[in-house]
Amino acid sequence: MSIFIISPNRDPKDWIESFKTQAPDIAVHTDLDAVNPKDIQLALVWNHQHGALQAFPNLKLISSMGAGVDHIFADDKRPQVPVARVMGEALTVSMSQYILAAVLQYQRKFKEYALDQAAQMWNQERGEHSQIKVGILGMGSLGLDAAMKLDQIGIEVIGYGRSAKSKTVVPYYHGDQLEEFLGQINVLVCLLPLTEETKDILNINLFRKCQPGTYLINVARGLHLVEDDLIKALNEGLLSGAFLDVFRKEPLEPNHPFWKHPQINITPHIASVTKPALAVRDVIINYRNLQSGEKLINLADPAAGY
Amino acid sequence: MSIFIISPNRDPKDWIESFKTQAPDIAVHTDLDAVNPKDIQLALVWNHQHGALQAFPNLKLISSMGAGVDHIFADDKRPQVPVARVMGEALTVSMSQYILAAVLQYQRKFKEYALDQAAQMWNQERGEHSQIKVGILGMGSLGLDAAMKLDQIGIEVIGYGRSAKSKTVVPYYHGDQLEEFLGQINVLVCLLPLTEETKDILNINLFRKCQPGTYLINVARGLHLVEDDLIKALNEGLLSGAFLDVFRKEPLEPNHPFWKHPQINITPHIASVTKPALAVRDVIINYRNLQSGEKLINLADPAAGY
Repeated sequence: MSIFIISPNRDPKDWIESFKTQAPDIAVHTDLDAVNPKDIQLALVWNHQHGALQAFPNLKLISSMGAGVDHIFADDKRPQVPVARVMGEALTVSMSQYILAAVLQYQRKFKEYALDQAAQMWNQERGEHSQIKVGILGMGSLGLDAAMKLDQIGIEVIGYGRSAKSKTVVPYYHGDQLEEFLGQINVLVCLLPLTEETKDILNINLFRKCQPGTYLINVARGLHLVEDDLIKALNEGLLSGAFLDVFRKEPLEPNHPFWKHPQINITPHIASVTKPALAVRDVIINYRNLQSGEKLINLADPAAGY
Repeated sequence: MSIFIISPNRDPKDWIESFKTQAPDIAVHTDLDAVNPKDIQLALVWNHQHGALQAFPNLKLISSMGAGVDHIFADDKRPQVPVARVMGEALTVSMSQYILAAVLQYQRKFKEYALDQAAQMWNQERGEHSQIKVGILGMGSLGLDAAMKLDQIGIEVIGYGRSAKSKTVVPYYHGDQLEEFLGQINVLVCLLPLTEETKDILNINLFRKCQPGTYLINVARGLHLVEDDLIKALNEGLLSGAFLDVFRKEPLEPNHPFWKHPQINITPHIASVTKPALAVRDVIINYRNLQSGEKLINLADPAAGY
């Protein structure tokens, strides 16, 4: 029984290293020629080639190397076994740090001060965005963690999710309260899972419902954002700027208008750096639970799509 | 009995507004010609002209409009009455937000990603500074608050202060443990008060004791930093960059080498934006305590200089 890793374009060496350290008894493979496919019970994947998982007749679990599982559900030739994802601290620490960084650089106008510096201008009057109110769209484990941390450092924050929640640190809206939520905020952070329902959700109609001049931060998936609508919304002043980590086509194409747009900041899909040393812990738990027949953890819901 | 505000180059209108809202019974003046100087018991000042406070024969308290009181102690023609400063939330929220912003933009390499964007480069390999360890030099109320918040968001942080403390959230060094403190860190945040002892403390000898490539954040006072030594330390690779909010001479002079230095970020002394609405609360408490003869709060220690 063993684990097989498929992650084209991502070097899995830190993952392999972490398995070696934390569970030296578990065989972890990456080379199909060096393994009997019947031995593989658990596949650990990131953007695997569709159909590739059919090689493993005894597969019991597909585990994502990140929070997202859309790349797994998109493969309709995959074996129909449970799908797990990365959850917890392995994921939230890095994502929340990125979100705080993006919110605070906007609030404190670091981009504007850098331009002042280039122009040798000492401009104290510039001040800061003193009345920001952040709205977090998507209040799963990532959204809740970011909301709590923004709140702790004195940033006003509210959240929106699909379904009711009994307890949240910050004011929470759900279901048909989306407009009420959007109407209050001037910084919008997208942390939604990608599903048929949420695809293209960041569009001109949604931007119109936010406070004029809202700042957009997208750290979820490129397909959430209608990219032409962002350009339009910036031109019309509906939005004042955007900090984007994800794009419909990655890497972002050479002549894409986002590259040179003065109101758009780009990072190359690096917001959430899953820490293999933390993430493998839960993969190991699932591997052992497969052997002992115990309940698997961190499972995604195929009906919800995340 | 009334209050007089002296703040050349700083419009006190938000302060006056806050007094009106929170204590409409207290007379607050800014015009010497419109007041009987004998009525003034409390002077609220920021960078007042030395000697100006001699105008008030019945002065009982000098209150700073910020955390620093060095601008008051530097006036040896001031009446010898107690000196108070801004403390608590009015001050810490804004400063800690700035420090988190400066630390996180460094950790997540936002400056480098902005340069990549300008060059239309999708460079995921750039990653982040994943092993940062922040050292806070000066663990007064500002330092403690910043340390606690960095710790809460998962950034490793230690602190150094002059004297022993019984309880701190993060590892704390004091007295002759400065070298031990510096030897561990690769991000140095200066939050010291300005005294004879701390003037020029950020010099080449101190930089040599930090981890090679340490990143410097100075949000305290310009006189803490020997500016030529910073340039030297950057050239020699002792430091890798600096985020500076304060300078020996402000505004920063037109031909100062910091303006165009690619490893230095400048903001024009805006890190800590004291919130008048919160700060006047404590000034009002002191004003009332003066009337009733009760103990004053937030007093600075003339012997320590802060």
